[in-house]
Amino acid sequence: MHDFTFYNPTRIEFGKGKETHIGTYVKEFNVESVLVLYGSERIKQDGLFDRVTASLAAQGIRYEALGGVVSNPVISLVREAVKVVKENNLKGIVAVGGGSVADSAKAVAAGATYEGDVWDFFIGKATVSEAIPVFTVMTLAATGSEMNPYGVVTNEETQQKYNLGAPSLYPKVSVINPELMATVTPDYLAYSAVDIFSHCLDLYFTAKLFPEFTAALIENILATVMRTTDVLMKNPGDYDARAEFAWASTMALNGNTFVGVAGNSFDTHMIEHAMGGLYNVPHGAGLAVVLPAWMTAIKEQMPERFERFAQKLFGASGADAGIEKLTAWFSAIGAPVTFAEAGLSSDAVDPIAENAFGIAKLWGLDQLFPQQRIAEILKLAVK
Amino acid sequence: MHDFTFYNPTRIEFGKGKETHIGTYVKEFNVESVLVLYGSERIKQDGLFDRVTASLAAQGIRYEALGGVVSNPVISLVREAVKVVKENNLKGIVAVGGGSVADSAKAVAAGATYEGDVWDFFIGKATVSEAIPVFTVMTLAATGSEMNPYGVVTNEETQQKYNLGAPSLYPKVSVINPELMATVTPDYLAYSAVDIFSHCLDLYFTAKLFPEFTAALIENILATVMRTTDVLMKNPGDYDARAEFAWASTMALNGNTFVGVAGNSFDTHMIEHAMGGLYNVPHGAGLAVVLPAWMTAIKEQMPERFERFAQKLFGASGADAGIEKLTAWFSAIGAPVTFAEAGLSSDAVDPIAENAFGIAKLWGLDQLFPQQRIAEILKLAVK
Repeated sequence: MHDFTFYNPTRIEFGKGKETHIGTYVKEFNVESVLVLYGSERIKQDGLFDRVTASLAAQGIRYEALGGVVSNPVISLVREAVKVVKENNLKGIVAVGGGSVADSAKAVAAGATYEGDVWDFFIGKATVSEAIPVFTVMTLAATGSEMNPYGVVTNEETQQKYNLGAPSLYPKVSVINPELMATVTPDYLAYSAVDIFSHCLDLYFTAKLFPEFTAALIENILATVMRTTDVLMKNPGDYDARAEFAWASTMALNGNTFVGVAGNSFDTHMIEHAMGGLYNVPHGAGLAVVLPAWMTAIKEQMPERFERFAQKLFGASGADAGIEKLTAWFSAIGAPVTFAEAGLSSDAVDPIAENAFGIAKLWGLDQLFPQQRIAEILKLAVK
Repeated sequence: MHDFTFYNPTRIEFGKGKETHIGTYVKEFNVESVLVLYGSERIKQDGLFDRVTASLAAQGIRYEALGGVVSNPVISLVREAVKVVKENNLKGIVAVGGGSVADSAKAVAAGATYEGDVWDFFIGKATVSEAIPVFTVMTLAATGSEMNPYGVVTNEETQQKYNLGAPSLYPKVSVINPELMATVTPDYLAYSAVDIFSHCLDLYFTAKLFPEFTAALIENILATVMRTTDVLMKNPGDYDARAEFAWASTMALNGNTFVGVAGNSFDTHMIEHAMGGLYNVPHGAGLAVVLPAWMTAIKEQMPERFERFAQKLFGASGADAGIEKLTAWFSAIGAPVTFAEAGLSSDAVDPIAENAFGIAKLWGLDQLFPQQRIAEILKLAVK
């Protein structure tokens, strides 16, 4: 068991109607004005925007609102939001949406106390220290952003999908109300399931040291995701399945799966970030294409782990059986598993590999992943 | 899945030699003076006391030291410690020891900012709000006190073993260095294993609502405890087993096992606190006596849960098989499973039942557990 630090101060308020208390939660932190950041205008039609802002108003919290955050969120909107925060002297942010909105909110929170360009934090030109407090009301469970200090944003000009992170970016309070997730479309439910899988498998198949307890925790998360996704595809209104799916998603990237683990990298995310940055493929869709190819490419490195995966998740034996069954499950829930299914041509292989290599350098993975190696992995997904 | 709030701000510093950084951790919170609270003088012989105080001194942190905390810690020592803190105007506490020391430290932390008698917090006469910061360096893994806001202390005069708890009592930073636990005696290792079991089983066999994910998490904790205890009984120096045991212990009472759970009570602890308060039986030893008896008494209430327990933990079938195998395992690791083995006579049944009923009233369990019912459970352990 490798040495570790575990620290996660985010408070989770989980359950029905919790978003109607967001004003109280914000007030507890003595935050008297916020930016309400969101994605599509749908939240104004379904009443969520009104419930959130009414709760803020009831506590006397002044707010400005800004929508328009998109899947694969962009730095231009983050810059716009930073401007709104600064111009209105806002002291906090309430993110209402999925991982894209939460991730953008973290970037805005960091940018709010910084004089330079917020993109500096993503390219290592500046380090986040201070940030204004972030609160979230989640409408999609996938990225785990509600209980971690990370954010991923795309720079549209440079086509770089990069990340930032700092302890000050842990949300103070995150509301997870599974009812708000009941209208997620089947394709985005599938992408979310794949995203959770990739958070877990990036660790599971790369870590050299892996305590049994942590490995079993990851298997529990994955089994929960498979079980609840299958239920939700048939019955989107199943509250308990929606709730367990949401919690599995949070647990997959809130620090628990890293306990005692060492020697891991974050391969599929590195490659998918390139794909998303260049071609705006939905994150989970890109990951569904990359994961089976990557597993095939690395399976010889950790035969025991692959055997265990096949057994624990599918009651099967052998690395190939595990990969096949996972790929089949991705297909069954409607996630693309080839370049063609994701709407990409084989011409995209080299640009993605080149872009991913840029991320590999930033993450210190360039020795492990020369550009040619990334291209070889991608080619396994061109069918 | 029941609504819940998850909040746990304690930072865990886990690994070899981490206690030598305790001064740095304390300093991060701008705490410039502390009480070093500990149990036996053994930590002065084995160098731990020196390492901790040298680390504090290196950061310019003024300290006073007070030892003498015992298993089933007593309120008289807590009162003495509160006096030392107040007289020396100390701003924090570093607990060095097991759960008894950590629990006592929390009581001292609450008492330090309170003008009345610290026992008031245990009997509901006062509520903890402010407290001075607590840090822990753990030498025993059992109670989970390093990552929760609870403390249990015995009032020797009234023979009440009662608890306190408040968000301000979460330790700021807890050091878990499994090497410091390598010298735990086999009997205390067994008691610790039983304590972890009881934290889990009090939930597992009482909660009316239990998400599959959380149930599987508990089974993972229990399987880890059984596996690592068996290793450590043969090879006390096995670092990885010691480390996984320690983390399982922390996870068993840091909030994760309560996620989405509803309708639970904390039965075996209620009964054991009475046993410990009256007869000073080690906590884990008392629990080993109570657990099988209690399981036998309630097995009809949740047959599916008992069947599942037998299957998952022992590959057996039926409530009786599960109880028998657990009892046999407790015996095999050296924990007492009857009154006689714990050094108690059958005359102790009624006093324990009466005392436990006092706790039941305090916890709102008196409808569920009339005194006669508690006595009936205890009689199952008189063999």
